[in-house]
Amino acid sequence: MKVAILMGSKSDLTVMEESAAMLRQFGIAYEMRIMSAHRTPDEVMKFSRDARDNGFSVIIAGAGMAAHLAGVIAAHTTLPVIGVPIASSPLNGMDALLAMVQMPPGVPVATVSIGKAGARNAALLALEILALNNGGVLKKLDQYRSDMRRTVLEEDDSIRNA
Amino acid sequence: MKVAILMGSKSDLTVMEESAAMLRQFGIAYEMRIMSAHRTPDEVMKFSRDARDNGFSVIIAGAGMAAHLAGVIAAHTTLPVIGVPIASSPLNGMDALLAMVQMPPGVPVATVSIGKAGARNAALLALEILALNNGGVLKKLDQYRSDMRRTVLEEDDSIRNA
Amino acid sequence: MKVAILMGSKSDLTVMEESAAMLRQFGIAYEMRIMSAHRTPDEVMKFSRDARDNGFSVIIAGAGMAAHLAGVIAAHTTLPVIGVPIASSPLNGMDALLAMVQMPPGVPVATVSIGKAGARNAALLALEILALNNGGVLKKLDQYRSDMRRTVLEEDDSIRNA
Amino acid sequence: MKVAILMGSKSDLTVMEESAAMLRQFGIAYEMRIMSAHRTPDEVMKFSRDARDNGFSVIIAGAGMAAHLAGVIAAHTTLPVIGVPIASSPLNGMDALLAMVQMPPGVPVATVSIGKAGARNAALLALEILALNNGGVLKKLDQYRSDMRRTVLEEDDSIRNA
Amino acid sequence: MKVAILMGSKSDLTVMEESAAMLRQFGIAYEMRIMSAHRTPDEVMKFSRDARDNGFSVIIAGAGMAAHLAGVIAAHTTLPVIGVPIASSPLNGMDALLAMVQMPPGVPVATVSIGKAGARNAALLALEILALNNGGVLKKLDQYRSDMRRTVLEEDDSIRNA
Amino acid sequence: MKVAILMGSKSDLTVMEESAAMLRQFGIAYEMRIMSAHRTPDEVMKFSRDARDNGFSVIIAGAGMAAHLAGVIAAHTTLPVIGVPIASSPLNGMDALLAMVQMPPGVPVATVSIGKAGARNAALLALEILALNNGGVLKKLDQYRSDMRRTVLEEDDSIRNA
Amino acid sequence: MKVAILMGSKSDLTVMEESAAMLRQFGIAYEMRIMSAHRTPDEVMKFSRDARDNGFSVIIAGAGMAAHLAGVIAAHTTLPVIGVPIASSPLNGMDALLAMVQMPPGVPVATVSIGKAGARNAALLALEILALNNGGVLKKLDQYRSDMRRTVLEEDDSIRNA
Amino acid sequence: MKVAILMGSKSDLTVMEESAAMLRQFGIAYEMRIMSAHRTPDEVMKFSRDARDNGFSVIIAGAGMAAHLAGVIAAHTTLPVIGVPIASSPLNGMDALLAMVQMPPGVPVATVSIGKAGARNAALLALEILALNNGGVLKKLDQYRSDMRRTVLEEDDSIRNA
Repeated sequence: MKVAILMGSKSDLTVMEESAAMLRQFGIAYEMRIMSAHRTPDEVMKFSRDARDNGFSVIIAGAGMAAHLAGVIAAHTTLPVIGVPIASSPLNGMDALLAMVQMPPGVPVATVSIGKAGARNAALLALEILALNNGGVLKKLDQYRSDMRRTVLEEDDSIRNA
Repeated sequence: MKVAILMGSKSDLTVMEESAAMLRQFGIAYEMRIMSAHRTPDEVMKFSRDARDNGFSVIIAGAGMAAHLAGVIAAHTTLPVIGVPIASSPLNGMDALLAMVQMPPGVPVATVSIGKAGARNAALLALEILALNNGGVLKKLDQYRSDMRRTVLEEDDSIRNA
Repeated sequence: MKVAILMGSKSDLTVMEESAAMLRQFGIAYEMRIMSAHRTPDEVMKFSRDARDNGFSVIIAGAGMAAHLAGVIAAHTTLPVIGVPIASSPLNGMDALLAMVQMPPGVPVATVSIGKAGARNAALLALEILALNNGGVLKKLDQYRSDMRRTVLEEDDSIRNA
Repeated sequence: MKVAILMGSKSDLTVMEESAAMLRQFGIAYEMRIMSAHRTPDEVMKFSRDARDNGFSVIIAGAGMAAHLAGVIAAHTTLPVIGVPIASSPLNGMDALLAMVQMPPGVPVATVSIGKAGARNAALLALEILALNNGGVLKKLDQYRSDMRRTVLEEDDSIRNA
Repeated sequence: MKVAILMGSKSDLTVMEESAAMLRQFGIAYEMRIMSAHRTPDEVMKFSRDARDNGFSVIIAGAGMAAHLAGVIAAHTTLPVIGVPIASSPLNGMDALLAMVQMPPGVPVATVSIGKAGARNAALLALEILALNNGGVLKKLDQYRSDMRRTVLEEDDSIRNA
Repeated sequence: MKVAILMGSKSDLTVMEESAAMLRQFGIAYEMRIMSAHRTPDEVMKFSRDARDNGFSVIIAGAGMAAHLAGVIAAHTTLPVIGVPIASSPLNGMDALLAMVQMPPGVPVATVSIGKAGARNAALLALEILALNNGGVLKKLDQYRSDMRRTVLEEDDSIRNA
Repeated sequence: MKVAILMGSKSDLTVMEESAAMLRQFGIAYEMRIMSAHRTPDEVMKFSRDARDNGFSVIIAGAGMAAHLAGVIAAHTTLPVIGVPIASSPLNGMDALLAMVQMPPGVPVATVSIGKAGARNAALLALEILALNNGGVLKKLDQYRSDMRRTVLEEDDSIRNA
Repeated sequence: MKVAILMGSKSDLTVMEESAAMLRQFGIAYEMRIMSAHRTPDEVMKFSRDARDNGFSVIIAGAGMAAHLAGVIAAHTTLPVIGVPIASSPLNGMDALLAMVQMPPGVPVATVSIGKAGARNAALLALEILALNNGGVLKKLDQYRSDMRRTVLEEDDSIRNA
């Protein structure tokens, strides 16, 4: 039970670190890799093809601009692939979003929101998938939801008493 | 091992039927429901909360316009929720896409492409998730990929010889 | 005669404080709350259902990204719900705008402009609604319009004499 | 207790008739008028200024393209003004939406969704405002919500048994 | 032969000052005014109606957000009205652009580019209109074009020799 | 006193004929020409340079896609150039609009709305410019406004009595 | 001297046939192939890697939605790759355009306009590249330009005499 | 074998310098020029017409806003023209992108990504074109790809060991 976090370039690291931090918080093993659909396509292909055999259950892929990384990975594996669009061009991530989410029929990419919010949600989505067969993760997810809920309730309290 | 296919209105049926057809083709049980985040919110909440206990592993939700259905479901379950944006307003589905994919951190929706292509991919994504613990589904997914590949190769042949 | 100001997260406070300031200026009671359609959905539902009985006449809801808050509230009450889209993602609030304004038929959200301008207008719209049955508020609204007018006239004078 | 339904041109009638039908269904008096912010600005101004004295409680305004009608009305009255963006140019109503919703601070327009869905919601929003002081309308709104709910439940039944 | 430069708010002054500076450079009289389609609609109407009699030949109007100013002016005069969309909301001026340029048939607004570039071009367009009957302005326009051309040629020289 | 109506391709004729019809209605001479910024650039340049000497006062240019025609004309003349964006690609005229209106500082194009509405407004804008020095045109413009006003009033009457 | 025309699916054939027709008109050999970045990625990779050795000089790739085809080809060859975005989703080709043109630094795709216009231009761009070392193609390109020019001049004549 | 790098204004220099740096790195001669489609159209025309005779093989053109430069060049030459859209307006380069890429059929512009990434890719695309007949450039391109690949692999190593 291991998650792969791939990104197209080192400049995506500050965003994708949000995925890693979330997985660490849940005690889930992950491997973080820099691979580019355009600059190291062979590595992407090989990684994607071997991912299941190498023990990965889910692949998270973050990329910006014409973000092909998630789609190219998905073309080489039937593992669930989660795409995180990154806003690294003047178009504010709309380019990456459309290049990820609008996959043609047959090869899905599970796309989440643009940037850090998406990176965090990508990890949570991976955890929800893992939780289908892991009661421990499920319990932690429930706890995470409770914690989020309590944080909002506390914020609510704080402004009510302000 | 059962998939839920929810949609906000009966007019979404022709789109979401693509998800159902795909699951039938893979021999996976599914339940198809019409529930509206705005018109039957209690049913959505109840369905979402009980979904895991009722044997569902994945929830697919299709909706158009300010498409809240998938997000509202995701707020009430930690099952993976897959969102299919539907183009049912003059804005061509851009409204539904942004209302689904741009979920705030904490509650992910796995968004796929707009319309029928997305409905088909939503089912395939669900199958990829199920295949993590089901060798039979995995085998059929591999077969599905092979069939797609062969179809493209045949199309390729047909135009090369045209 | 009381107005509720809800927001999805504490980070929306600087925007929504504009609504509060306007209501204070008009001497209208309001309650400011942090509630999240995704992280505290039960609180949102309960608040919305009880709002009329608790003396609220109008609900203002500010949210960013896939801004479901206003729509979820509107699903649980027939009080007028005013939505303020907040620009809290790289998409500059276009995501929140479409996720609020494009409500399907049956459950309206009265959407105003993005950000602080919208938060101020949300309060004014609430005041216009209250003024339908309150001559005092109406008189203050007229005064507010006069003041705005005078400010513009003074600005006009100042550049004419510059 | 009377609602005004204004539109910029006769070609908007098929859209705005949805507002009228809804009000008829609720037994609320309305007046339907064609007035143009650009072609009959004096009539718009006069109508807006006199609307409160003439017994109107809410003004619904539908317009397409650079849809100024709702904003111009709002500049001349402190009645609540509801704007319905209409898709009457190649830009699919995005022009009308932005020209309505993005009002500068001080003069709000309560904007609803583009086209017929919006016209229906505009009437419902007007009814929600009227219901604040009219138990009869409130009761009918509750009934309307129940009817919607039942319709969805019936649709849900019909596909479950299909 | 006089040009009016109107703007909706004092915050538009840094943009619209570009129009004024251009007219000063050409020795053309202008009057700069702050008037708001929404906050001082009567002043806008009166100014527009009297503009021709008051010796104005062209009206330049700059506004942001749901920029109605130019259209409202154009509804009250048959003088040429030039609109400058200003980027004063998170939508980067796309709202102001569409609210200005997409005027319905019958009442044109001559729209130029967003922001300072547009303010400068608005003045030049006004000068082109004045030059139709004023050889002096025409001569200065030709000189302005020559100067622009020379500037570019010099820039070209400077990088060729760099 | 003559107006030029240029368009980039014969397929633009049904749109630009709206400009011609308006000018005919006002009794203003016009010349209609097909010239392409990309396919007959020399003709465009020559026409633009000689336009003033050939008696033209205003040039209307309609084009679709990357609509350069108006800008290229404007580069070669200081006559007022009016641009009509035409929706002749899948992007619904947004491409033509931005390629026309976003002219860099120094060379303005007076851009009007997309398509037939814009073609009509382009002619009216040209007439407003001509009317600055032609009382006859001014009188007809006033008459045109009155006629529009009367049409709207009649439409208004017709639905009030329906 | 041979051009490859690749497309992601048989449904793209009516668009990409425009490229083929243009090349036939110029007497340039071409090979037309259906290959999918997602469904037959190995074939795409192999084709791209061998393309230069197999005698191809330029590769034209047409695709819709999240159009990865051109980028994936470009990752495997240093031949010039020309991308034709195809409008095959509700987003009118904006998705395909951004997914093609916004390539990250290092691996360029020469993107042309959406749809049939782009398919024709892709072939012309390929011919311009070939003409750098082939006087015959260059002569035909000059002839093509002359023919286009004459067509426009004839269209111009026809409406001038209409 | 020489490449031209044209830009519409000196402010584009920091972007277009990326093209120059890339060509220097490959040892390819280039000429960098500032020419404006609107301010020095004659120079653009003359340069474009003579470019082939003056030994240029490819023309790179960078421009912002209504970016006509590349299209105007392409109208006067059958050399390959590569367009770099520059984000120099509030619209973030979307205006320049559409004004470049959406060329009508007959006159192609090879458009690359917005800004510096595009400027670099424009040079690489030019080099790919030159490499068709120059084994030395081809070899360097292969080396460049290898270097990119190695950089990514090293980045990958660095985070794996972090």
